[in-house]
Amino acid sequence: MTQLPFSYPAIDGERLLADLHTLRGFGAVGHGVVRPSLSPEDIASRHWLRQRMADAGLDATLDGVGNVIGRSPQPGPALLLGSHTDTQPLGGWLDGVYGVIAALEVARTLRHDPVLGAIALDVASFIDEEGTHYSFLGSLSASGQLDQQTLDAARCRDGTSLPERLHAAGLDGRIAPLDLRRYAGFIELHIEQGPVLDDGGKRLGVVSGIVGARNIDIVVSGEANHAGTTPMARRHDAGRALIALASAIEDTFSRTAGPETVWNIGRMSFQPGAAAIVPERAELRLQFRDLDSRRLDRLEAALQPLAADIRTRWQVGVDIARAGQPTLPAHLSPVLQAHLVRATERRASGAWITLPSGAMHDAGIFAQVMPAAMLFVPSLGGRSHCPEEDTRPDDLVLGAQALADAVVDWARFTLPDRLPARK
Amino acid sequence: MTQLPFSYPAIDGERLLADLHTLRGFGAVGHGVVRPSLSPEDIASRHWLRQRMADAGLDATLDGVGNVIGRSPQPGPALLLGSHTDTQPLGGWLDGVYGVIAALEVARTLRHDPVLGAIALDVASFIDEEGTHYSFLGSLSASGQLDQQTLDAARCRDGTSLPERLHAAGLDGRIAPLDLRRYAGFIELHIEQGPVLDDGGKRLGVVSGIVGARNIDIVVSGEANHAGTTPMARRHDAGRALIALASAIEDTFSRTAGPETVWNIGRMSFQPGAAAIVPERAELRLQFRDLDSRRLDRLEAALQPLAADIRTRWQVGVDIARAGQPTLPAHLSPVLQAHLVRATERRASGAWITLPSGAMHDAGIFAQVMPAAMLFVPSLGGRSHCPEEDTRPDDLVLGAQALADAVVDWARFTLPDRLPARK
Repeated sequence: MTQLPFSYPAIDGERLLADLHTLRGFGAVGHGVVRPSLSPEDIASRHWLRQRMADAGLDATLDGVGNVIGRSPQPGPALLLGSHTDTQPLGGWLDGVYGVIAALEVARTLRHDPVLGAIALDVASFIDEEGTHYSFLGSLSASGQLDQQTLDAARCRDGTSLPERLHAAGLDGRIAPLDLRRYAGFIELHIEQGPVLDDGGKRLGVVSGIVGARNIDIVVSGEANHAGTTPMARRHDAGRALIALASAIEDTFSRTAGPETVWNIGRMSFQPGAAAIVPERAELRLQFRDLDSRRLDRLEAALQPLAADIRTRWQVGVDIARAGQPTLPAHLSPVLQAHLVRATERRASGAWITLPSGAMHDAGIFAQVMPAAMLFVPSLGGRSHCPEEDTRPDDLVLGAQALADAVVDWARFTLPDRLPARK
Repeated sequence: MTQLPFSYPAIDGERLLADLHTLRGFGAVGHGVVRPSLSPEDIASRHWLRQRMADAGLDATLDGVGNVIGRSPQPGPALLLGSHTDTQPLGGWLDGVYGVIAALEVARTLRHDPVLGAIALDVASFIDEEGTHYSFLGSLSASGQLDQQTLDAARCRDGTSLPERLHAAGLDGRIAPLDLRRYAGFIELHIEQGPVLDDGGKRLGVVSGIVGARNIDIVVSGEANHAGTTPMARRHDAGRALIALASAIEDTFSRTAGPETVWNIGRMSFQPGAAAIVPERAELRLQFRDLDSRRLDRLEAALQPLAADIRTRWQVGVDIARAGQPTLPAHLSPVLQAHLVRATERRASGAWITLPSGAMHDAGIFAQVMPAAMLFVPSLGGRSHCPEEDTRPDDLVLGAQALADAVVDWARFTLPDRLPARK
């Protein structure tokens, strides 16, 4: 441990909250916010944010896809802090916004410290984390995982050209990847978006990893028949067969799941959908998530034997196919996690836990190219992506303070020679 | 048994098939027919049918709702024979048409017999059995079960005024109920619309009864949550709860069902229907049918305890409600059935069975006000209400012949004094 003198400067909680409320004003609708990426409110908020970063002494730019990057004048190795400021179509006021403004608050707090001002802290708001047009456009392009050629050919979710959509928002569509050699790591502060911290009376959560997700489409093909005149034994009932399969999946997943595995059947429907017609087609979308890829493999592998049994017992076709590419679990940096653990214990002794992130985040994108870590504050009632989304102000301040402490510890442990002696 | 001389006159199979094919021409589309009630094709076919009845010596009229009634000049007691000539939106060529033309063929065959010509046989095509506008409009109004006031206020399925719809088709909308005192009974010949006869290699089926049907809507209410961040134990998952309930219904119905019970889950859906959102609402429509009202009662009563268990285990709301009025089972006349059994055994020894009708028919309406019976011929592959609907021509002829024989036997047993001695 360094013998240099150091302190843990206090962040300015009121300034943090004031900026959060100012940013909320871009697209506020009742208690919620409507600021999907590339909307006029989103673009306006990015110009405001760039100015706030510049006011904090950062070299702030809006890049060609809309990322707001505030770069410290200090040379690397640097830490990158941030998250995203775009919202769901009708979203909450915190979500990723909190991580961006907290990062800004940490940067401007440390900048004025005579010793810690030497730490290189860059701050970012990555565009379209929510996937209004192209999921993780900002973090993928900034981290070098989306090349210009791919972007130029990309289509938005609604089918329009992504470059045209960017141009329409006043952006040039040029990718400007960060210089990855500059960074020792990325830390993202975020609301939990789930109920674990709030239910458990905890104030902070150090994220152990970001779960991987798989989406599976299951389609059962049977035969439409009159539901009055066709004897039960003669039917090829896609609907009842799918119910039996879904029930078997529930049994198998319950037995195979780990303590943190989650699964969901978000959609299920029968065709033709008439009361008196035996369904000829029935389908569902199954999604399951876990930190452990081997468990995800086991869960996915369990589906085929269940389908085979249904085919035989119900005399129907069963098709099982992945929907889209699986999201791989993101392993977070043990070193950065250790700094976060130290900070949370200092600031909220006994009131923090480690937990996986069940949702994907920009940190999951950056974890592919550099050490990354995440810190959560509670979501009241576990609500997020909705106007009711909220967190107690003292927890918002606490999270930013813990982030600042972790940054200080990172510098103490990693760059002891860089920090000048305190005068 | 009467000692009077009698014979079983042969119907004219070619004339029967020719009329079936002529009627098929009104709305033919490929192998199928598009002739929903009150369509121009339907109205045109009714005028043609009225003329065919008149040609057969019947006093034929088109009544105010579109029923075509051909009345024998003989005094009652009469038998009423018939079915319906309207089709599903894209239907088959036989369906009820067969029963109407076969009835006409029987009437015109017997009319020229010097002895049997004394039998009073009325022939009818009842409108809108298929419920394009108002289910069983024709048989309900002709049998005195729909009064003028109700009709005047009635709305079609699409919400328009039923009287206006009738006027637009050139009908006056006046109900002209049959004089029920005239009739000793109603016999309907129909295609089976199911696979039982065809699968079993049978050529005729005497209908033992028309099953009752109940429709139940089940709605599960839970809580929408993020499917990644919400721990399994914390969810109020309407979707998985409904799958568990549907699976329990399947188990219970399989155990409680009689040999002829059928049930169907024709619709099932989850809201909001997104892959990554735990469903907050999930619903299904359950339909079940049986000849035995007590068994229907037992099946329906079994649902509440299953729902109670789901509410407790899954922490969701479960609402179970009847959709519409139940259709009561229709008990058919043992005497008329006995005449049909005698006729089928004579014409197709060993190649007939008794079976319930899983679908509702005009005979089910008439069974409420007079003795009624039904005879089925096979549906190839069990297909009906679709262009593929078909029946072998020799079976079509056989069914009409058996109907003729049954009418003769009815007269022999019921009206021996009425039939003049054969010269």
